[in-house]
Amino acid sequence: MENKFAERARLVKSSETREILKVTEQPEVISFAGGLPAPELFPVEDLKTACHAVLNEDGAASLQYSPTEGYIPLREAICKRMQEIGVYSTVKDILITSGSQQAIDLTGRLFINDKDVIICESPTYLAAINAFKSYNAEFVEIEMDENGMMMDHLEKKLQEYPNAKLIYTIPDFQNPTGRTLTRERRQRMIELANAYDVLIVEDNPYGGVRFAGETLPPVKHFDTEGRVIYISTFSKIFAPGLRIGWVCADEAFIDKYVEFKQVADLHTDSFAQRITAKYMELYDIEEHIKKIRAVYKARCTEMLACIKEFFPKDLSYSKPEGGLFIWIELPEGVNSTLIFAECLKNNVACVPGVPFFPNGTQKDGLRLNYSNMSKEQIIEGMKRIGEVLHRELAKGTALL
Amino acid sequence: MENKFAERARLVKSSETREILKVTEQPEVISFAGGLPAPELFPVEDLKTACHAVLNEDGAASLQYSPTEGYIPLREAICKRMQEIGVYSTVKDILITSGSQQAIDLTGRLFINDKDVIICESPTYLAAINAFKSYNAEFVEIEMDENGMMMDHLEKKLQEYPNAKLIYTIPDFQNPTGRTLTRERRQRMIELANAYDVLIVEDNPYGGVRFAGETLPPVKHFDTEGRVIYISTFSKIFAPGLRIGWVCADEAFIDKYVEFKQVADLHTDSFAQRITAKYMELYDIEEHIKKIRAVYKARCTEMLACIKEFFPKDLSYSKPEGGLFIWIELPEGVNSTLIFAECLKNNVACVPGVPFFPNGTQKDGLRLNYSNMSKEQIIEGMKRIGEVLHRELAKGTALL
Repeated sequence: MENKFAERARLVKSSETREILKVTEQPEVISFAGGLPAPELFPVEDLKTACHAVLNEDGAASLQYSPTEGYIPLREAICKRMQEIGVYSTVKDILITSGSQQAIDLTGRLFINDKDVIICESPTYLAAINAFKSYNAEFVEIEMDENGMMMDHLEKKLQEYPNAKLIYTIPDFQNPTGRTLTRERRQRMIELANAYDVLIVEDNPYGGVRFAGETLPPVKHFDTEGRVIYISTFSKIFAPGLRIGWVCADEAFIDKYVEFKQVADLHTDSFAQRITAKYMELYDIEEHIKKIRAVYKARCTEMLACIKEFFPKDLSYSKPEGGLFIWIELPEGVNSTLIFAECLKNNVACVPGVPFFPNGTQKDGLRLNYSNMSKEQIIEGMKRIGEVLHRELAKGTALL
Repeated sequence: MENKFAERARLVKSSETREILKVTEQPEVISFAGGLPAPELFPVEDLKTACHAVLNEDGAASLQYSPTEGYIPLREAICKRMQEIGVYSTVKDILITSGSQQAIDLTGRLFINDKDVIICESPTYLAAINAFKSYNAEFVEIEMDENGMMMDHLEKKLQEYPNAKLIYTIPDFQNPTGRTLTRERRQRMIELANAYDVLIVEDNPYGGVRFAGETLPPVKHFDTEGRVIYISTFSKIFAPGLRIGWVCADEAFIDKYVEFKQVADLHTDSFAQRITAKYMELYDIEEHIKKIRAVYKARCTEMLACIKEFFPKDLSYSKPEGGLFIWIELPEGVNSTLIFAECLKNNVACVPGVPFFPNGTQKDGLRLNYSNMSKEQIIEGMKRIGEVLHRELAKGTALL
């Protein structure tokens, strides 16, 4: 019966990573593999109050069908947050989505024709790769350094691919590298996008979780022509389970997103939207985010200290100022999948770098998540990974 | 900047109906236009208890990322409900979706190639038409009578379109007609699907809301070759705002749905899934559904009585045994959009039949929803529509 599938079913493959992650869910495994927020920080008690208030004040409406665009007070609260980071939008520029993953997927659906070129960081977020691949996009990867996507390389590729449809970028604490694009490069990216008439999709799930350095305005702040589509989410600053994300873009774009959103799932959970808005009405979400930042900072610091202590000395790695991930660059010829398999034998997990490169491995690496494990788990887990790295790199068996 | 849209953006149009429905939301309008459940029946107090219990017992997990397939206890509860209506599935055959609209959309994404033929009832659910059209499907409409899709016409069209991909059917209290497919036709549909090797997509959002006549097993009950994909939802028996739907199909299909679901939005709201499961654990949802059935039966009976009293005598209309809708057939040459416009001038709304015909108007009609208005509103609203129908049909101005 599988011969009934559409052609595009070939384009979405059972992600190896997904299978991998299932293994890492066993309780004896110390996992730096997922991208999960620290669940002990979820504001469970405050949510009880918010749920109660929504059901008391607005019970029927919160359980009924609601407009595709989203709950207006939530969109207003998002506008206010966007304003605080330098993006001046109105409610009409905001669409609530079922997590930022849906915003990414709808972006592919709305803009990507067969074989359209997407320019992205190398490496980049694997679930965005999968979503765009499902629309048969092609990828042009741009080299990164510690300051994010390299603008000279971007310009070269824009010249080489004059019909490129969009630049997909995660400027803040990028997934998987944890790197942040500098202010100068953000401005330059806009100049280049204007010059080469290409859209920018700015995926910013982590921007709120900065725990060091100076806050930078989003790429969209510098947008002069309405060509930046900004995507974000409450997943990293509130609760990912509720699946509340958004798109902020010019109204003409949002109108078309709304049409596709309606076809995709009519609207995002009315109740989840209202309890998110109610939470922000009743509590100071900034105070809550401060707690997240403090915990993630401590965990990131611990993990970086462990790298220094336990890992081979010659490895390069990122030093993130926020977000959830550290990226370990592996020496050329070292296979991250093999390292991963060895780690798993020692009950510790990370994500091998391969799936983050849409065109196959370039500079292989390991992604380590620090947000979801305790200090003790970080120390013990990093020790184990360190042992694997020392042994495998010395033995040379990890060499291809 | 709109030149950046993908080709498929053309395929999804700003639905006229959507614009129409916005007008009908004005408080002075008596609206039979939407397909909204009666909000006064939402179990608001019980949901307070369920929310509290979930957050107490399972707070962190209910707010965290969760598996794409859905929350296992919810999938188990669905299996049990499916069993009660004669479909013997296991948890592995169930995927939780963000409402049944997402299940429909994923079905298009998974199965429909450019120009693939979908066979459907004429008329049929307009948001399914829109979803399938977004994948550039073509539609072959099958005539209906009071007993649903006509099997002789179906067979003729299967012969004519031997490469048809799937039959999309709403067997119970169809949207927009309110008609129900007989047991014999369900069995015959399976025989034909087997003989012509075509899939069946059984969309069954209303089956639980039967208030008269004998319960019929789903088409999937008669499925001998795993070719029926069954789609349903909690929207009409619990709360549509929570966006909890599901697909029940053979595991080989579900595995592929899961891959696309992951790309589309990672997973459905963890909290909404858990409060739905918790509600069913704490309360007897069948008792709740009984209340819905009683109210809808009374409203449907009232609306049918009003048709007899206020409408021109020569009109045909459906006499539903469940669901949310009555369909009024208009005499040939009468334009439902014009009737609708006249109704709106009198502050009463219905949905004109045109958008329910994927290939353009066949036998035009009006869809009337009775679930969302009180007895008094039904009487007053039907009086007004009756006046319009009498006047317009007599004047002949409604003739094309």
